[in-house]
Amino acid sequence: MDIRYHTPLTTDEMKHFGCEGHWPYAMADKVHFHELDSLNHVNNVVYFSWFETLRVRYLQDWGLSDYSNNPDNPRLVVKSVSADYKREMYMGEDYLVTARTTSFRNTSFTMEFGLWCDGLRATGDAIVVVLEPDGSAKRPLSTALKQRFIAVDGAHDANAPV
Amino acid sequence: MDIRYHTPLTTDEMKHFGCEGHWPYAMADKVHFHELDSLNHVNNVVYFSWFETLRVRYLQDWGLSDYSNNPDNPRLVVKSVSADYKREMYMGEDYLVTARTTSFRNTSFTMEFGLWCDGLRATGDAIVVVLEPDGSAKRPLSTALKQRFIAVDGAHDANAPV
Amino acid sequence: MDIRYHTPLTTDEMKHFGCEGHWPYAMADKVHFHELDSLNHVNNVVYFSWFETLRVRYLQDWGLSDYSNNPDNPRLVVKSVSADYKREMYMGEDYLVTARTTSFRNTSFTMEFGLWCDGLRATGDAIVVVLEPDGSAKRPLSTALKQRFIAVDGAHDANAPV
Amino acid sequence: MDIRYHTPLTTDEMKHFGCEGHWPYAMADKVHFHELDSLNHVNNVVYFSWFETLRVRYLQDWGLSDYSNNPDNPRLVVKSVSADYKREMYMGEDYLVTARTTSFRNTSFTMEFGLWCDGLRATGDAIVVVLEPDGSAKRPLSTALKQRFIAVDGAHDANAPV
Repeated sequence: MDIRYHTPLTTDEMKHFGCEGHWPYAMADKVHFHELDSLNHVNNVVYFSWFETLRVRYLQDWGLSDYSNNPDNPRLVVKSVSADYKREMYMGEDYLVTARTTSFRNTSFTMEFGLWCDGLRATGDAIVVVLEPDGSAKRPLSTALKQRFIAVDGAHDANAPV
Repeated sequence: MDIRYHTPLTTDEMKHFGCEGHWPYAMADKVHFHELDSLNHVNNVVYFSWFETLRVRYLQDWGLSDYSNNPDNPRLVVKSVSADYKREMYMGEDYLVTARTTSFRNTSFTMEFGLWCDGLRATGDAIVVVLEPDGSAKRPLSTALKQRFIAVDGAHDANAPV
Repeated sequence: MDIRYHTPLTTDEMKHFGCEGHWPYAMADKVHFHELDSLNHVNNVVYFSWFETLRVRYLQDWGLSDYSNNPDNPRLVVKSVSADYKREMYMGEDYLVTARTTSFRNTSFTMEFGLWCDGLRATGDAIVVVLEPDGSAKRPLSTALKQRFIAVDGAHDANAPV
Repeated sequence: MDIRYHTPLTTDEMKHFGCEGHWPYAMADKVHFHELDSLNHVNNVVYFSWFETLRVRYLQDWGLSDYSNNPDNPRLVVKSVSADYKREMYMGEDYLVTARTTSFRNTSFTMEFGLWCDGLRATGDAIVVVLEPDGSAKRPLSTALKQRFIAVDGAHDANAPV
């Protein structure tokens, strides 16, 4: 199968990488030489750049920011991130990064990431806080975005009464 | 005060950065231009390279590996990492990274990191697993290392009976 | 047109990027967020990683090294590199990197690179020296490789009598 | 001798690294783990970030830009760069980067860089063009800057009649 890189993939295409679970957004890329460290595998820091690359595209496609000079774009602040490494990645391997929002509050949300190549290689998460463009205050998520998080991502409203 | 970079600092020197708590190992460095992203602050991924830089030095000084071709050096695998961001870092700022091991088991240990510049800017942690050089099996921590973790770092033996 | 990334492109596909001249090898990629610097364009250092990415693939396809642990792989040393910047690159842009060998001697060769996106954005070159695997001596280029450089790249034998 | 990192060094301190020739500006740093590639030496692309780090500090100290949001700061564009590699750099090595301006015209200047560690490891150069803050036009170098280039760097006025 020809891999389509840098493009949101279909569920069938995602299965090619051994991807499991519900992921509404996924793109493929390839390991480059400069991502290896002296142990001849992908350095563990690089995974966060891969998650970042998909997160930026996701936040554009979900309508949070177009990352232009548009003065209405919110300021998106990463509050925390983590990664859990399952198996190493090597030179030239094709991989899939998957993303979804798992929960949200009024002004922040939690994303999960998966890294796939012949099955799961790593997982990650990130908490993103939405601020006004000048950083002066938090900006509430729009109702449309919350509904998209629920309907498309399967996210949980962490502020909702039980 | 003149800052001594790339050198384990004294407790007094650490206070210069607003550092609090017990940290047995700390080194200073400075933000470089290539560490900034398009938001004109240090990219959140870069913090992991800063933690890695100190971790490599710490693991050498604690006697785990000299990072040479010595065939007896264990293979040190990062199992997971995380970072929590408090305040942004900017061009040219001097910062302190602090490290300690907080707990250990037979073949792995958990490290904590602090990033300081006029107080706390970020925290992080990492779980490190120790393998035989060929990766075939886990290698137990030496008694001397465990004692150093307890005496110098104040670490907790997670395998000890309560 | 759908862009095929990370894959050697045809001459027709190369024209999509405004590419001119004879280039026997070319692959496309996309600007990622982490490649931007605080001026909100691609940092000039990053271009060298892009050239490196294509060079590694080129050297594999031209049969110089498979970049594995194969003990017969030569040691390929970059002796010098340069880049000339024509127009900036921005977030999300699709680009083409092109490569060719322009001349060779007994144990080294000179490569040229082009960076294309709506026409020429940058050029670069690199001199590569071929050593024995242990670095003890220079290794002569094979006759087959020299013939390929001449026939496919249009390279000049810098050792040939005029 | 204790090495003072990230600080302009004296001629005596520069000699510690085997530095030769007239260099009006030099700072020391240390190789970090993340700068190594899979060949276990510093990747050749990283040298450009080292030259950039010193160039940014130099341009501040020579009064060209304070790299703040000051609206009078010119836009400094790197037109071309190159590097020539003499000997590899390895994990943990202390090194010195030296800089000088060798020639200038009305709106641009050429810088040279040296990388030193037990003698010369690499050289580099960069052509920098000075633009108005909005990039609309080239901005002439001030007379004070030209005089500093001549008196301190030993630079040549490439526009002067022979």
